[in-house]
Amino acid sequence: MPLQPSRTVAELRELRELTGDENGAQRVAWTDTWAKAREWLRAKVADTGAAESVDAAGNQWFTLGGGSDRAVLIGGHIDSVPNGGWLDGCLNVMAGVEVLRRIAADGAPPVTVRLVNWADEEGARFGRSLFGSSAAAGSMTDQAELRGRRDADGTALPDALAGQGVDLDRALDARSELDGAAAYLELHIEQGPVLESMQLPLGVVLGTFGVERHQVTYRGQAAHAGSTPMDKRRDALAGAAKLELEIREIAKRTGEGAVCTMGGVVTKPGIVTSVVETAECLLDQRHLDAARLASMLASAREASERFAAEEEIAVEWERIWNIEPILFDERLVELADESIREVAGPSHRLPSGPLHDAAEVARAGVPTVMVFVQSLRGLSHTKLEDTKEEHLELSVQALDRLAAKTIDLVAAQ
Amino acid sequence: MPLQPSRTVAELRELRELTGDENGAQRVAWTDTWAKAREWLRAKVADTGAAESVDAAGNQWFTLGGGSDRAVLIGGHIDSVPNGGWLDGCLNVMAGVEVLRRIAADGAPPVTVRLVNWADEEGARFGRSLFGSSAAAGSMTDQAELRGRRDADGTALPDALAGQGVDLDRALDARSELDGAAAYLELHIEQGPVLESMQLPLGVVLGTFGVERHQVTYRGQAAHAGSTPMDKRRDALAGAAKLELEIREIAKRTGEGAVCTMGGVVTKPGIVTSVVETAECLLDQRHLDAARLASMLASAREASERFAAEEEIAVEWERIWNIEPILFDERLVELADESIREVAGPSHRLPSGPLHDAAEVARAGVPTVMVFVQSLRGLSHTKLEDTKEEHLELSVQALDRLAAKTIDLVAAQ
Repeated sequence: MPLQPSRTVAELRELRELTGDENGAQRVAWTDTWAKAREWLRAKVADTGAAESVDAAGNQWFTLGGGSDRAVLIGGHIDSVPNGGWLDGCLNVMAGVEVLRRIAADGAPPVTVRLVNWADEEGARFGRSLFGSSAAAGSMTDQAELRGRRDADGTALPDALAGQGVDLDRALDARSELDGAAAYLELHIEQGPVLESMQLPLGVVLGTFGVERHQVTYRGQAAHAGSTPMDKRRDALAGAAKLELEIREIAKRTGEGAVCTMGGVVTKPGIVTSVVETAECLLDQRHLDAARLASMLASAREASERFAAEEEIAVEWERIWNIEPILFDERLVELADESIREVAGPSHRLPSGPLHDAAEVARAGVPTVMVFVQSLRGLSHTKLEDTKEEHLELSVQALDRLAAKTIDLVAAQ
Repeated sequence: MPLQPSRTVAELRELRELTGDENGAQRVAWTDTWAKAREWLRAKVADTGAAESVDAAGNQWFTLGGGSDRAVLIGGHIDSVPNGGWLDGCLNVMAGVEVLRRIAADGAPPVTVRLVNWADEEGARFGRSLFGSSAAAGSMTDQAELRGRRDADGTALPDALAGQGVDLDRALDARSELDGAAAYLELHIEQGPVLESMQLPLGVVLGTFGVERHQVTYRGQAAHAGSTPMDKRRDALAGAAKLELEIREIAKRTGEGAVCTMGGVVTKPGIVTSVVETAECLLDQRHLDAARLASMLASAREASERFAAEEEIAVEWERIWNIEPILFDERLVELADESIREVAGPSHRLPSGPLHDAAEVARAGVPTVMVFVQSLRGLSHTKLEDTKEEHLELSVQALDRLAAKTIDLVAAQ
């Protein structure tokens, strides 16, 4: 049975009908709609002969035994954010199903092939993303903290998980699933504008950005907007404004692939008759190279202090979150590049700004690569998320080629 | 009986005890505490022989008949904001009482002298400042709108006024109070840092600033902070940052007495993972010269549009409020300058950023001047508001000199 990429598009539409509404996809992890989607997926995979199992973290595995226990993994997530798009996460899963069908139809593969539907990639309900993949990767270290989390309705995380047969305390037992994993492949929509602006359907992902996230707070002095001369002011907003403009220069100087964002400023007292006393800025910096990320952070900090001195205000940095860059496997990047060139002509290598389950698997030492397919207008996490049908079909073909090449590579090792 | 400036300070402390608490002054207009303060004031003035009357807008007048119906007015306001300071408004009133005592003790003056305690200068309860003075000046044009206003407890403005014997529909009858007014004098704390920074106790006010107040809204495009390259962004915050820095240059270029303030920015969505889509900026510009104010506004608007074009974002201006500059009387400014030099050595001429009842009286065509006394740290509308006792005493002396000179001037006209 040859690959039928159009079937993937049809099945994605079927899933949308089954688990979405007029506001978009509603497959939030640990809900009944999510469980319904997993049930539907089980039925779709059944005819491939792949054996289903659910691990201790709730990840859903479909295993096609082969000539060796060494395994090539294809992974995605069927969960969505509330009012989500029709492709984020489930494209990977459904393309994987089609690839599994093709492989199964070709007879027993030389190595084991497994499709995994990770549990709760989005973290939409409890604010903890990459749940299932971080458990399998062994990098989940926050179980004690997770025990206390509740959703908006007050349901505790452990209770929601238990409702779907998952025991939070045992989630790390999922680590054994990566035993024997020789490669991990993931296809995802780009969720950004790069491929569309280059008029390319597909690209190879080099890795996921390292992220440095801080709250930068400037403190000046509230003063009457009418009675305080300009040279007597200590305006916290001036520090924030200079920093907002400077982080863009820092990103430009660092070169392609560097991004710095001031996502918000909160001004206090924030009234028209007063100079701003406090400006709380949210700063997000990302780069694929750890040294350059560290340098961008140092530059921003140095600049922020220079601006504080110029304005006679104080500045204070508080780290909100950070993560190291995670680089994908060079050999698999080459294979993905080849696969894309074969099905779509030109390819392009780009970093991923958003995190993905692939980053967790890569952190666990499994050679990993991702393929991105173009997103229209870069939109995601909204029902407006979309990708041209012809590009979706090309992406299924590229994943299939990549899987074939990777199976050959692993079989030859 | 000679002038006793120390008595004014003692009486201000007495008023603070009577109508304040641990959070500051509580003489909010149209409340029982305010009525109690007016009652206390009536008793203080009684021994001068000045006749009390309350006009149709609730203004409390004390009239000392003289050799002519032409009147020199001294005005202030005993109402305060909630948790207010011990000087804002009532310094003027109590200094006026002391001056009235001195004049009465000297025998019948050559012209009529009137002390006025304006009703509801602060507008703290219903958000409408300069109530009584704008009624007397005939510039109150918003009675229909005021009829619908309610305080935080839901009490309607007309009901609160009626509780103090004032009929909103008749408030403009107070206009007749300015018949025969030949000069208006007002002493006030500076509520700003200029005199303190110059180490001067007293200054002459040239007029009140014209004000242009706008909301300037930049609209760009929300985009993922990780997946959107720097050159693909349309960042609304960049427009706001450039404008914040540019308005300071505009004020500097305009020269002394120009102030421009961005009092707040609201960023949407305002999250760390997104480029800012909308930045709503509060812009306040003030100048004593109408043409320069208009020029500052035009410069800010032109710059804002240039920044929008540079950033490929949209900008929109909405006027919140504006008022023309109001210049005080040149002859009275000279007399105030002389009076200050006589009691305190050097003087200084400065504009007033905040509005005052004096501005309403000046708009009505009555020759007007104000004297400012130094504010410590520029603080006002807080219990921390303060002025050195020696400076308070000098201010009472200066007002007395100014009243004497003004009476002579009017008598000679």
